[in-house]
Amino acid sequence: MNEFELIARYFDRAPLDASVRLAVGDDAAIVAPTIGCEVVATVDMLVEGRHFLPDVDPEALGHKTLAVNLSDLAAMGARPRWALLAGALPRNDPAWIDPFARGLFALAAAHHVSVIGGDTTRGPLNLCVTALGEVPAGTALRRDGARAGDDIYVSGSVGEAALAIAATERRTHLDAATLAHCRGRLDRPLPRVALGLALRGIATSAIDVSDGLVGDLAHVLERSRTGARIELARVPTHPALAQRRAGSERTLALACTLAGGDDYELCFTAPAAARVALAEVARELALPLTPIGTVCEGGGLVVLDEHGVPLATLPRAFDHFAATA
Amino acid sequence: MNEFELIARYFDRAPLDASVRLAVGDDAAIVAPTIGCEVVATVDMLVEGRHFLPDVDPEALGHKTLAVNLSDLAAMGARPRWALLAGALPRNDPAWIDPFARGLFALAAAHHVSVIGGDTTRGPLNLCVTALGEVPAGTALRRDGARAGDDIYVSGSVGEAALAIAATERRTHLDAATLAHCRGRLDRPLPRVALGLALRGIATSAIDVSDGLVGDLAHVLERSRTGARIELARVPTHPALAQRRAGSERTLALACTLAGGDDYELCFTAPAAARVALAEVARELALPLTPIGTVCEGGGLVVLDEHGVPLATLPRAFDHFAATA
Repeated sequence: MNEFELIARYFDRAPLDASVRLAVGDDAAIVAPTIGCEVVATVDMLVEGRHFLPDVDPEALGHKTLAVNLSDLAAMGARPRWALLAGALPRNDPAWIDPFARGLFALAAAHHVSVIGGDTTRGPLNLCVTALGEVPAGTALRRDGARAGDDIYVSGSVGEAALAIAATERRTHLDAATLAHCRGRLDRPLPRVALGLALRGIATSAIDVSDGLVGDLAHVLERSRTGARIELARVPTHPALAQRRAGSERTLALACTLAGGDDYELCFTAPAAARVALAEVARELALPLTPIGTVCEGGGLVVLDEHGVPLATLPRAFDHFAATA
Repeated sequence: MNEFELIARYFDRAPLDASVRLAVGDDAAIVAPTIGCEVVATVDMLVEGRHFLPDVDPEALGHKTLAVNLSDLAAMGARPRWALLAGALPRNDPAWIDPFARGLFALAAAHHVSVIGGDTTRGPLNLCVTALGEVPAGTALRRDGARAGDDIYVSGSVGEAALAIAATERRTHLDAATLAHCRGRLDRPLPRVALGLALRGIATSAIDVSDGLVGDLAHVLERSRTGARIELARVPTHPALAQRRAGSERTLALACTLAGGDDYELCFTAPAAARVALAEVARELALPLTPIGTVCEGGGLVVLDEHGVPLATLPRAFDHFAATA
């Protein structure tokens, strides 16, 4: 099976709607944007040994490779439409490529995303998806719109993906059910696409929690030129993390909760006037939207502990180029 | 310097026009497509040791990383508008990243392409650019439009990039001036963007010569369900290749001319009625457009040698997954 046969067999599938004028098989793909919409574009590169382990389930990896991009579009309030996949593969192994493609296309289909093009080559395993979405002009959620007085929310719960990594690295022990749950969060993140769409016109800013809550929220504050106070006790986490916060594994629990990446929840801000609307969104999506603090004029990001005392140091978000990374 | 500082220092530059509503620094970028246009999207991944050598000049690599994508857009007749860059870097080395970024942004500026987003991570060196362009709806050049009787053209000349590789691998010897010229073709390909735009409404099909003339032309024939006859003697090449074709290095010369990749010329088809218009395009762009053969109803791709005799075997185009690759 050569490069072209590989693409034809696994990655050349019928587009999901008529917006795709030309898909896989030419020098480039052609799509027709919706009149009145802007195009939202993002790219993420996943590298073996850094973003996933060599023994990762290829179907889960296919899911995650697209999911992290759809999460970025969700954080913009964009409707995902099209994706391109570039991949370097160490070998041409159908037993790996087949489930990988299955995982990727299953998530694509679930979100009506057409895979319109790509590139395959040999090399150390590296997967790079570009996702394209649309928003009605001017309605995208951005990082720079938070205003003093806004409530800060996080969807779902955070820290479980990091807890799964900690358990895998034997830095903590989880019972089988909790481990399975946390591994599911890590391996098959659910991009909050429907939430992003629902937050248009309500949220003043949004970001996805991919590197860790405090680091990602700090990006919003920096772009919005504001500060924030959040309350540790209000940050929604799994009971396994809440328990650890009260015991000898407090440091680990704080790191997972505040700086654990890979959750792909949305952190967003909204004025107090939006509380009723947000409660309705949470109900409709059956997804908790938890207020965890408030945007301030300045003062950086302060995290208050269970006694209302600011944490002296905040766990660091993941940084691919930090000296300790 | 962490990941965010690296991006801010080297890759966060002002957009080149107002179509970019939001560039680097959010979860995704936002662009406003031109009304009446379709969006054309392509992605290419370049891997160290496969697409370039470890000692490559990083500035040339920056140029080429974007150039190969702009070439794909050129082959569609699209005007390049926006690009996203994802890169895995083994280390954070300003002495490498700085010239790489310089090469990439110089070519981007020359074609009015705004770099709107990206992703950086650590890993084995891997560079992945997604380029987005625009065409007035329905005017894109595609691979499936060639018709029996059309002339087949190639722009500029082909085979020099492959000849540079052959010389570097000591499979042939070039004088210093020829080597420098051929290395320039290999390291700093010039995407035929202006030609692609000029061919809209004239060419019936187009492809860029990235994998080799016969392999790339075969893609056009397959998609167009046609055959073709081309004449070896008419394929425009450097004198160093023409000389070799007549001597003991004929096999090498044929491989470079017919199957040498990395030239990034355009191969396209057009009806005989377009000959005057194409001569005018060639004059305006100061770029030779050479007719090399004719599209036929069927019969596959036949290459006639200097005596009008079909070549028994055609050199193979490069295939990233071929067993011999």
